[in-house]
Amino acid sequence: MQPDRSATSHAGYVIGVDIGGTNLRLALADMSGAILDRWSSSIAGIRSADAVIDLIRNGTERLLQQNLVPRSALQAIGAGAPGITDVDKGVVIATSYLLGWRDVPLQDLLEAAFDVPAAVDNDVNLAALGESWAGAAKGTRDFVFLAIGTGIGAGIVLNGQLFRGMGWAAGEIGYMLVPGASDEPAERGKPGALESVIGGEGIKTQWQHLWRKESTTLPRELTATEVFDGALAGDALAQTLLHQAARMLADAIYNMSLVLNCPLFVLGGGVGMHTALGDATRHHMERWNLRAQLQLTRSVLGPDAQLMGAIRLALDTATSAPIVTVSSQRTKNHSVDGQLT
Amino acid sequence: MQPDRSATSHAGYVIGVDIGGTNLRLALADMSGAILDRWSSSIAGIRSADAVIDLIRNGTERLLQQNLVPRSALQAIGAGAPGITDVDKGVVIATSYLLGWRDVPLQDLLEAAFDVPAAVDNDVNLAALGESWAGAAKGTRDFVFLAIGTGIGAGIVLNGQLFRGMGWAAGEIGYMLVPGASDEPAERGKPGALESVIGGEGIKTQWQHLWRKESTTLPRELTATEVFDGALAGDALAQTLLHQAARMLADAIYNMSLVLNCPLFVLGGGVGMHTALGDATRHHMERWNLRAQLQLTRSVLGPDAQLMGAIRLALDTATSAPIVTVSSQRTKNHSVDGQLT
Repeated sequence: MQPDRSATSHAGYVIGVDIGGTNLRLALADMSGAILDRWSSSIAGIRSADAVIDLIRNGTERLLQQNLVPRSALQAIGAGAPGITDVDKGVVIATSYLLGWRDVPLQDLLEAAFDVPAAVDNDVNLAALGESWAGAAKGTRDFVFLAIGTGIGAGIVLNGQLFRGMGWAAGEIGYMLVPGASDEPAERGKPGALESVIGGEGIKTQWQHLWRKESTTLPRELTATEVFDGALAGDALAQTLLHQAARMLADAIYNMSLVLNCPLFVLGGGVGMHTALGDATRHHMERWNLRAQLQLTRSVLGPDAQLMGAIRLALDTATSAPIVTVSSQRTKNHSVDGQLT
Repeated sequence: MQPDRSATSHAGYVIGVDIGGTNLRLALADMSGAILDRWSSSIAGIRSADAVIDLIRNGTERLLQQNLVPRSALQAIGAGAPGITDVDKGVVIATSYLLGWRDVPLQDLLEAAFDVPAAVDNDVNLAALGESWAGAAKGTRDFVFLAIGTGIGAGIVLNGQLFRGMGWAAGEIGYMLVPGASDEPAERGKPGALESVIGGEGIKTQWQHLWRKESTTLPRELTATEVFDGALAGDALAQTLLHQAARMLADAIYNMSLVLNCPLFVLGGGVGMHTALGDATRHHMERWNLRAQLQLTRSVLGPDAQLMGAIRLALDTATSAPIVTVSSQRTKNHSVDGQLT
């Protein structure tokens, strides 16, 4: 069914973009935030921002065509990048080695490619925004989203707003110094003390380092989540790594809660979503008798957290831009919360 | 010279109150924030809030009389309390054992006693406000004020505003877990891991614990600042304690900077102001090559930081209350910054 062109201001659409280290994901959503369709592509080995923009353009055209949405109904684009991002200027300052971006003007590139308003942010911040809007942190004024995948990062929401820090790097907790970690901070660019114990890449490296034929029946090549699976199945070596990670994660959460007086922490990311890590971390936190003040929960949106945040960002960008009718849409956006969970 | 009664709305005055664990300090200031006179009293052993209010009333009457200020010219009172304070309700939720307050409605008590608008906050928050207004953090959007006296606490300013946390306890970092500390968090009410190494009481306790006749020429009874004096004079045992405190303080600052992405930390409080601690902490921080991103400086206002914050709070309370002419005074308050340093 072709949308009625005369109703464009009400029946607009946005695109949410999640740029990962190895995958690009797009979602087409209506102005209530409901996802109509998705598109994804591997970007492993692609480092050029122009090439990524071309892929986003191809994916967007495909989504619009498949859903019979006219190009003129596209209102805005929101994109998350895996690195430190200057939200005011729309510039990705630095990403990890996988993309290797430095000072990429992503917002300008997107606006030039699509001729609609665009906005960009760090992907973990967008995941926090997503959980705040439609996930585990709905109705919570202050909380921290902990993304644990290859590495670790935190998205911080204070007074209902993302807190990004003066250099756009708030929540870069991979280098946090906790008991049991070396207190010689790692050089920037290398994994931090916390990251090397809790992050997926660090756990994988440690597993290989500790692996001996006589101490485990599991193979030497395992991912972090496979190590956690092994721990659940009773493997002693895997349990050692799980409990070390859980203990340090509990300490890091405790430290953050002291600084921010923040009652809710949401675990996300491929490694962070593993139930074994959440359960073991809660077990360590129970030592403190702080259950009432400090809650650790699992992401509700899972791998969609970033994408939902990107959609939310696009909706805010569309409604704050002068080209659309703001008042009715803003009301719709807020009333949709209930539908998305 | 008696102030002209007809000019009261311009020539108003405020009282700033600093309630400490053992001392009560008052300052009379004009609407530009300039301190005209001070008054103080010991409150050692006094635990009753009513008794403290009586002392504040006596001190205020004295200050008004001595400076020929009519009672009607008093516009507002701002008070800092040494404990977790609900700023919205004006209630001191809990202080340390020295005062032993629980849920004291300090704002109401002050307003009933003086019949002018009053406002209250945690004393470390007020010290941060003071440094932000007229001290080491002028012009800085985000910074952390570290008060190190008997214990340790942090006042956090983000986006130019005090950040207090959902339970009014942001910055209660005495329990922070850093390398070298026990990772068994202390029970609430007992000194935390960090506090017992960096706080004045903890340093004093440790000194007595480690003291042997053969390992130092210094006496067994020393305050924390005397231990630091001894370290500067070359005493090896005192240097051990100084460097342990400096290392853990550096680690705690580093952890806070990771969470908040905050470039400036201001050291205050009787122990924190000692140059030996600041210098040794900066020395430990130099390991990280973060000088550009992370600055550690000394309080400019020193023991007046809390009092200046209380005055600032009183001025804001006076100018936000309907009973005074707001516009001209607000302009005056802001233009005074230069005069106060």
